[in-house]
Amino acid sequence: MAKQQGQGKITTAPLSGTRDFLPADVARRGYVIGVIERVYQSYGFEPLETPALERLDTLLGKYGEEGDQLIFRVLKRGEELRRALESDSGAPTADTVSDAGLRYDLTVPLARVVAQYRDKLPRIFKRYQIQPVYRADRPAKGRYREFYQCDVDVVGSASQTVEAEVIGAVCAILLELGFQEFTVRLNHRGILRAMMGVTGVPPELEGPATVAIDKLDKIDLDGVRRELGERGLASAAADSLLELLNGVPDTNDATLDWLGAALAASEAGRHGVDELRAVVDYTAYGAAAGRVRVDPYLARGLSYYTGPIFEIAFPGLSGSGGGGGRYDDLVGIFSGQSIPCCGFSLGLERILLLMEERGLFPDELGRGPQTLVTRFDEDTTPASLALARELRAAGLRVDLYPDAGNYGRQFKYADSRGIRYALLVSPREREAGVVAVKDLVSGDQVDVPADHIVAWLTARV
Amino acid sequence: MAKQQGQGKITTAPLSGTRDFLPADVARRGYVIGVIERVYQSYGFEPLETPALERLDTLLGKYGEEGDQLIFRVLKRGEELRRALESDSGAPTADTVSDAGLRYDLTVPLARVVAQYRDKLPRIFKRYQIQPVYRADRPAKGRYREFYQCDVDVVGSASQTVEAEVIGAVCAILLELGFQEFTVRLNHRGILRAMMGVTGVPPELEGPATVAIDKLDKIDLDGVRRELGERGLASAAADSLLELLNGVPDTNDATLDWLGAALAASEAGRHGVDELRAVVDYTAYGAAAGRVRVDPYLARGLSYYTGPIFEIAFPGLSGSGGGGGRYDDLVGIFSGQSIPCCGFSLGLERILLLMEERGLFPDELGRGPQTLVTRFDEDTTPASLALARELRAAGLRVDLYPDAGNYGRQFKYADSRGIRYALLVSPREREAGVVAVKDLVSGDQVDVPADHIVAWLTARV
Repeated sequence: MAKQQGQGKITTAPLSGTRDFLPADVARRGYVIGVIERVYQSYGFEPLETPALERLDTLLGKYGEEGDQLIFRVLKRGEELRRALESDSGAPTADTVSDAGLRYDLTVPLARVVAQYRDKLPRIFKRYQIQPVYRADRPAKGRYREFYQCDVDVVGSASQTVEAEVIGAVCAILLELGFQEFTVRLNHRGILRAMMGVTGVPPELEGPATVAIDKLDKIDLDGVRRELGERGLASAAADSLLELLNGVPDTNDATLDWLGAALAASEAGRHGVDELRAVVDYTAYGAAAGRVRVDPYLARGLSYYTGPIFEIAFPGLSGSGGGGGRYDDLVGIFSGQSIPCCGFSLGLERILLLMEERGLFPDELGRGPQTLVTRFDEDTTPASLALARELRAAGLRVDLYPDAGNYGRQFKYADSRGIRYALLVSPREREAGVVAVKDLVSGDQVDVPADHIVAWLTARV
Repeated sequence: MAKQQGQGKITTAPLSGTRDFLPADVARRGYVIGVIERVYQSYGFEPLETPALERLDTLLGKYGEEGDQLIFRVLKRGEELRRALESDSGAPTADTVSDAGLRYDLTVPLARVVAQYRDKLPRIFKRYQIQPVYRADRPAKGRYREFYQCDVDVVGSASQTVEAEVIGAVCAILLELGFQEFTVRLNHRGILRAMMGVTGVPPELEGPATVAIDKLDKIDLDGVRRELGERGLASAAADSLLELLNGVPDTNDATLDWLGAALAASEAGRHGVDELRAVVDYTAYGAAAGRVRVDPYLARGLSYYTGPIFEIAFPGLSGSGGGGGRYDDLVGIFSGQSIPCCGFSLGLERILLLMEERGLFPDELGRGPQTLVTRFDEDTTPASLALARELRAAGLRVDLYPDAGNYGRQFKYADSRGIRYALLVSPREREAGVVAVKDLVSGDQVDVPADHIVAWLTARV
């Protein structure tokens, strides 16, 4: 038994940062996940699932130092744990007492799977994966320790049709869910690098400067300037960089032309502009048509992107509904080779929140029972059981009240579950060869011939 | 960074005892889970989901001492972990360095949810829950550290129609999955207790004796006799108990009559026989009709059952396909009251294994792409993209090959993904207003008018 160190009474709330999903929550989440799956399948993606538990050495070192700190670590067990705790070679540490961790994202597991099953996977592997991930973060509004990621990735092709396909699929999902006003911000890591190069940001400060620029939609220009300074960038370079970013034209074509001219001296810049132009062209023929906006401010925090990057933006909303990009080095990390890869991670939790706020959920989502078969007494119970069986065989969702007698109680229960029709089979109905249907909305009660009850109900629920 | 303690090269296999599910696996599992969900919904059950992470004090002490050892513990984080590791008040222990654990089953989370949301739940709460659980067990064939449980429970009614409903639902699931020969073994904890009472097993040995009897389908009579002895039962009582069990008649009615007579002196026994008789009666009117077999040998290991217990048995197979029973004290553990409850836990992993062995999976399960749109060159790429969009809008699952040129390579890829029809839109087809369809099974190629391609494909996939 664990010592309960002064914790007092056991609380029954879920662990801080995690959530219970009651039936109505599961229905809403299931609806959105169902749309996501169907659309991804229509784009030729197939599902992958990986374990929640991974080896610690699979996870560590992949998410930066900050990420390593946020990995939930699982304690060693049995003899191994005892040895680690009683180590003679020094005090136990997090690294000596744990050997596994919880899935932190869906990208590193994908990289592991690609290395492990190379021979079983198609040459171009298109997978989606919708599973919870775990972050040992301080919980806050909208920030959870267990939350779902919805990732789609194409492994094995460097073509920009891939960017167009993942962006198109995500737009198709949002449209099907009922979102109308959203855009896809688009940039390229090569363009960002080139902008740094031509404005005099030294290579070793490219990473920190990218992180600072990424905050331009959250903090203002002066805030970013201050942050660039704090990160060690000379003020001349910072001014030059921000001035460059300030000159962005309005349309995609003009922006691409302008970038092409401004970064002409940089090979990475020219290459980035060419790739972005292809993405813009290709997306015009799919579900993303008219929604893509080239935005040289977009940086995206993650360090592993190498090519085009993109992010869903909802008007009037800071933060994004998901994002992604091309990352040609990460998936090959376990197989020791560079594998072209491009993906998109949809922000499920944020999308659910937005749908709730905007009333985008259909009215009838739950798969709760459509009718309640009541129980009158012991003698008629076989009739109740047989009726429930008949209705279920016809595809109806049927609850059977467990306790005999007291119709009022049974009706009240039906009402609490949102069931409109309660079915009565007392001796009176049995003798008349009918089922009495109590409509709990209107209060009316009608007799329906027993051999018509399936058709009667099917027409009404 | 973690120290990699002599682990050498990082392996990419999933952590021992866990599994990756590639697309074909996910499809098979999803098919079975889909049937389970649909049937449970048709019986009026609604879905619940709880977090993988639970407070350690929620989990500990609920599964016996052996169970406590099998809980995966999660390390404390940050400052808390540092304090725990550098504790002045003695060496750190598993209890001081961890504060959370992984979900061990779906019953304790249900109990927590029932206590936490009592006011939001219907008076009789019928929930199903299908989620992975975690056991820090030594992995073995068929024994995993991460595996799915499929639980269905009715909270809040003591009626035996509840037993009949959960047993009926499970039988309906197995029938729909294609299983034909299976039975439901049925017993009652009160009957087991009464049998112990009348044969002289002292109350403090009832638990250990139950565990021993539970093994009668795995080890023989002498083995159980030996185990009863090892657990401290006097040989006279052991003989008497085994002799009693040896006298079980063939039919349910005869067995119930025989039990009624043999246990007449015990109130728990009489009560148990009455309840079992009700379960047998009620199940006759549902999907379990003809499959229930009263079996006084059935004990089921878990200590928390208080009433009827049951288990799916497949002929010629030791171990079960799932089981359950009534447990009126566990769900109230967090709310401090006794709440009548009855449930069934379906053995998903075993069922999947049996379906594989018996070839019960339908042929077409995957939701992989039905057609591949090829790419000829840059100029025709818009036509390829637009064709893919048109087909997807019509509900088809469509892959688009990312790299232009080399049809042979594209056909080979289509073939590796099980796609039969590859669609060609080179300048020749564009000029003729057709799409060329290459049938990768027959090798034939036909031209289909561009405005007929949706109908043509829809009729064939």
